[in-house]
Amino acid sequence: MTVRVGLIGLGTVGAEAVRTLEAHAEMITARAGAPVTVTEVSARSRSKDRGIDITGMTWRDDPSQLAASDNVDIVVELVGGEDGHALAAVEAALVAGKHVVTANKAMIARHGGRLAALAEANNVQLAFEAAVAGGIPILKALKEGLAGNEVERVYGILNGTCNFILTEMLSTGRAFDDVLKEAQELGYAEADPGFDIDGVDAAHKLAILSAIAFGVKPDFDAVEVSGIRDVSALDIKFAKELGYRIRLLGVAAKSETGVEQRVSACLVPESADLARIDGVTNAVMVDAEPVGQALLVGPGAGGGATASAVLGDIVDIAAGRTARAFGRDTASLGALKTTPIADRHGAYYIRLNVIDQPGVIADVAGVLGKYGVSIKSVLQHGRQPNEPVPVVMTTHETTEATMRDVASALSALEAAAEAPILMKIESL
Amino acid sequence: MTVRVGLIGLGTVGAEAVRTLEAHAEMITARAGAPVTVTEVSARSRSKDRGIDITGMTWRDDPSQLAASDNVDIVVELVGGEDGHALAAVEAALVAGKHVVTANKAMIARHGGRLAALAEANNVQLAFEAAVAGGIPILKALKEGLAGNEVERVYGILNGTCNFILTEMLSTGRAFDDVLKEAQELGYAEADPGFDIDGVDAAHKLAILSAIAFGVKPDFDAVEVSGIRDVSALDIKFAKELGYRIRLLGVAAKSETGVEQRVSACLVPESADLARIDGVTNAVMVDAEPVGQALLVGPGAGGGATASAVLGDIVDIAAGRTARAFGRDTASLGALKTTPIADRHGAYYIRLNVIDQPGVIADVAGVLGKYGVSIKSVLQHGRQPNEPVPVVMTTHETTEATMRDVASALSALEAAAEAPILMKIESL
Repeated sequence: MTVRVGLIGLGTVGAEAVRTLEAHAEMITARAGAPVTVTEVSARSRSKDRGIDITGMTWRDDPSQLAASDNVDIVVELVGGEDGHALAAVEAALVAGKHVVTANKAMIARHGGRLAALAEANNVQLAFEAAVAGGIPILKALKEGLAGNEVERVYGILNGTCNFILTEMLSTGRAFDDVLKEAQELGYAEADPGFDIDGVDAAHKLAILSAIAFGVKPDFDAVEVSGIRDVSALDIKFAKELGYRIRLLGVAAKSETGVEQRVSACLVPESADLARIDGVTNAVMVDAEPVGQALLVGPGAGGGATASAVLGDIVDIAAGRTARAFGRDTASLGALKTTPIADRHGAYYIRLNVIDQPGVIADVAGVLGKYGVSIKSVLQHGRQPNEPVPVVMTTHETTEATMRDVASALSALEAAAEAPILMKIESL
Repeated sequence: MTVRVGLIGLGTVGAEAVRTLEAHAEMITARAGAPVTVTEVSARSRSKDRGIDITGMTWRDDPSQLAASDNVDIVVELVGGEDGHALAAVEAALVAGKHVVTANKAMIARHGGRLAALAEANNVQLAFEAAVAGGIPILKALKEGLAGNEVERVYGILNGTCNFILTEMLSTGRAFDDVLKEAQELGYAEADPGFDIDGVDAAHKLAILSAIAFGVKPDFDAVEVSGIRDVSALDIKFAKELGYRIRLLGVAAKSETGVEQRVSACLVPESADLARIDGVTNAVMVDAEPVGQALLVGPGAGGGATASAVLGDIVDIAAGRTARAFGRDTASLGALKTTPIADRHGAYYIRLNVIDQPGVIADVAGVLGKYGVSIKSVLQHGRQPNEPVPVVMTTHETTEATMRDVASALSALEAAAEAPILMKIESL
C-alpha cells in the first residue's frame, strides 16, 4: 500500500524532498516497506519553476484543505513561522488523524508540548527531526539510540550562519558587519538576519533538544538568549591569542537546581571538538550516562540536509515505527525547572575600552578584587597615552551574577570608554 | 505490561546493562512505554561478584534454555565469538520467537544475512547497534535517520585499540610493540591482540556498516584487511612531516563496478576530521545524497558505551519500534558486488630502506617512472654512507595494482635493504 504525502511549502526543502523521493524511489520503498508518493501539494505560487514536476499532484490553494484531505496519510509542513498558516495546517492535520512531519523549529519550540498531546490524542505521529541541526539525526539519537542514557548536558553549534560569520571573521580578520554582508550575498544569512545572529534560531533548537534530553515540555521562554552582534574582530583576535575560539553555543545542562538553558557567544578552548567546527556546519555534543560523550556533526541547513531529515521522518512513519514526539508520553513530560543564568558557575572573558593612563589596570583589577573574582590573565597591547585602548582579562571560576555586577562597576570607572564586553568561557 | 529480558553473558557490558536498567528504571519505563526488567541470566560463573544483584533473576546454566524460556521476551547475547554458544543461543531464541539484541560483530558479519532472515521468518527483531562503534548510534542513523539517502561512502575509525596505539606512538615517538604493551596494561588491548591490531575487528564492523549502507548481505570475506603491525614510529614521524596522520580506517565506498571494502592503515590529511580523532574514540563518516556529509563520534568500546547501545535496542523493541536488521527485507538485500582492491585509485605513501649510495634515489625514482607513477614528494633525512637509510615518497594518483608492482620492483633493487612499506593516502 502506497504511503501518501501531502506537502505544504515548495521552497528549497520541499522541492528537494520531491526530487529525492523520486530519485531514490526504489531504495526508499525498500527501507519504508512501501512506496512513498507525494499526492498533494500547496504553496504560494502554482506556476513557479522549481525544477520538479508537480503535474501529477493535486494542487491545494488552502493548506488546511490539504491537511484534511482523504488522499493524504502524512502532512509535511515546510512553511515555517511559529504560528499562522503553519500552525493552523498542522493542527488541522493532527485533528484529521494525519501524521505530521515538520521542519518548523519556531512552532515546535513554542507549541510543541500542545501539538505532541494533540498527536497522541489522535493516535498519529508528530516528527520534527529537520527542526534541529538539519541533516544530523540528533533527535532520533537522543530519543531512541541513547534512550537508556541519563543526559547531563546537551550543547553545540546550532546555527550555521553564526558559525560561518565567526570562522570567517577569524580567518580574515574582517569586521562583523562586513562578513555578515558576505554571508547574505552567499545566501547563508537572510536579508533580515536578526533571527540567526541574535541567537533566536539556535534558541528554538536548544529548547527542543532540551525537552527531549530532559523529558520536559519545550519552553522557549526559559532560554537565556544572546547573539553575536557584539563580537568584534578584536575579541576574536584576543581569544585566539589566549588559546580559544569564539562560538555561538546552545547549552542545556542539568544543575543541582534544575536545567540551565542558554544561547550565547562563548570562548571554547582551541583543542575542543567544537572549536574545530568551521563554516555553516552544525555539531551537537551529548554528555550522558552510561555512554559518556557522543558528538554528531553535519550540515545544519540547506535543501539537501533538511530534506534528508524530512525523509527520515517520512520513512519512519511509513515503516510503522512509532515514537512519541518528545520521546515519551506528554503526560509524563515534566515542567522544566529552570536554573537562573545568574547562577552559572564558570570562567569569563571581559574586554574593556579604557583610557590608557597610569594606574588604570590597577583600578580595573581592583574592581574584580572587590567582587572576589580572581584574574587568570590580562592582555593589553599597544600604548596610546590618554586614548582608549582595549584591555582583556580572563577570570577563574565565578558566577554570572558576580560578573554582571563587575561589568556594571567597570562601566562606572572614570577611565571606561564604553561598557565592557562579557563572554562565558566554556571548558568543554 | 513488563518487557522481560534474558541476558546471556555477564561480563563488563552485561553487568553495566543490568546496573543501568535499574539506575534509570523510571526514565527507561517512560521512554519504552513499559517497564523493562531482567528476568533470566546465564553466564559462566554464578557466584562471581559483578557488583550487581542477580538473586531475583532465574539462573540458567544452559544459554539455549534461557533463549527458549517462556519468561523472556528479548534475549540479549553478550557472549561473543562468531559461532559456538553465541550463535546457538541466538538461533534458538529467534526460532522460539524471541527478539534478539546482540553486541556480537563477528557473528553478525559472518552470519548476519541468515540470522536476519530467521528473525523475519519468526516475526521478531534482530538488533545489533552495539556491534559497531560502541556507543555511537550509527546503524540507526544509517537505517532510519538517513533512510532517504543514497550512501556513496561510509568510513571511519572503527577500532579504538588501534587508534590509541597510533595516537600514542605519535605523541610519544615510541615504538609499536612498546605502546601495544601499554595498551594491554591499560586494558585497551587483549592479551592476544591480533583481532584488534590485524584489523579483523574493524573489518567485522565495516562489513556490517557496508551491508546497511548499500542494501546487501554482510560479506566479511569481501573485506580486504590489513592492520597496524607494520606501522613504525618512523612512518608516523614522516607522515607528520608531510602533513598527515596515520589512522586505521575502514572504508566502504561505491565505485563504478561495485563496492570497495577495506581496512588498512592510511595517511589522512592533518586537517581532516578523522585526523583529529585521538585515543580509543571511534568515528564514522557518511557521505550521502542528499545530506552531504555527516560525522558521528563517540566511545567505541567499554561497558558504558556498549551497554548504552544495547539498551537503545531494548527500548526500541519494548516500544514496539520495528526495523529490519539491515534496514530492509532480507529478500531485497542484494549480493555485494565487490570492487577488487587492485582497482583502488588514489595516492600512496611508500617507505624504503635503501643503502645510502650515490644514484640510489635515481634508481628508485626510475622504478616509479617505469610504472607510470608520478612522485609528489621525496624525503631522505640524515646520511649514512653505505648503510641503510629510510627514503619516503608520496605519489600522485595511481592504482593499488600498480603500486604493488612498484613495491615488488623496489624490493628487487640491489640497494633495497628490506621490502618497502606501502600505505594508502586518503583524501577525505
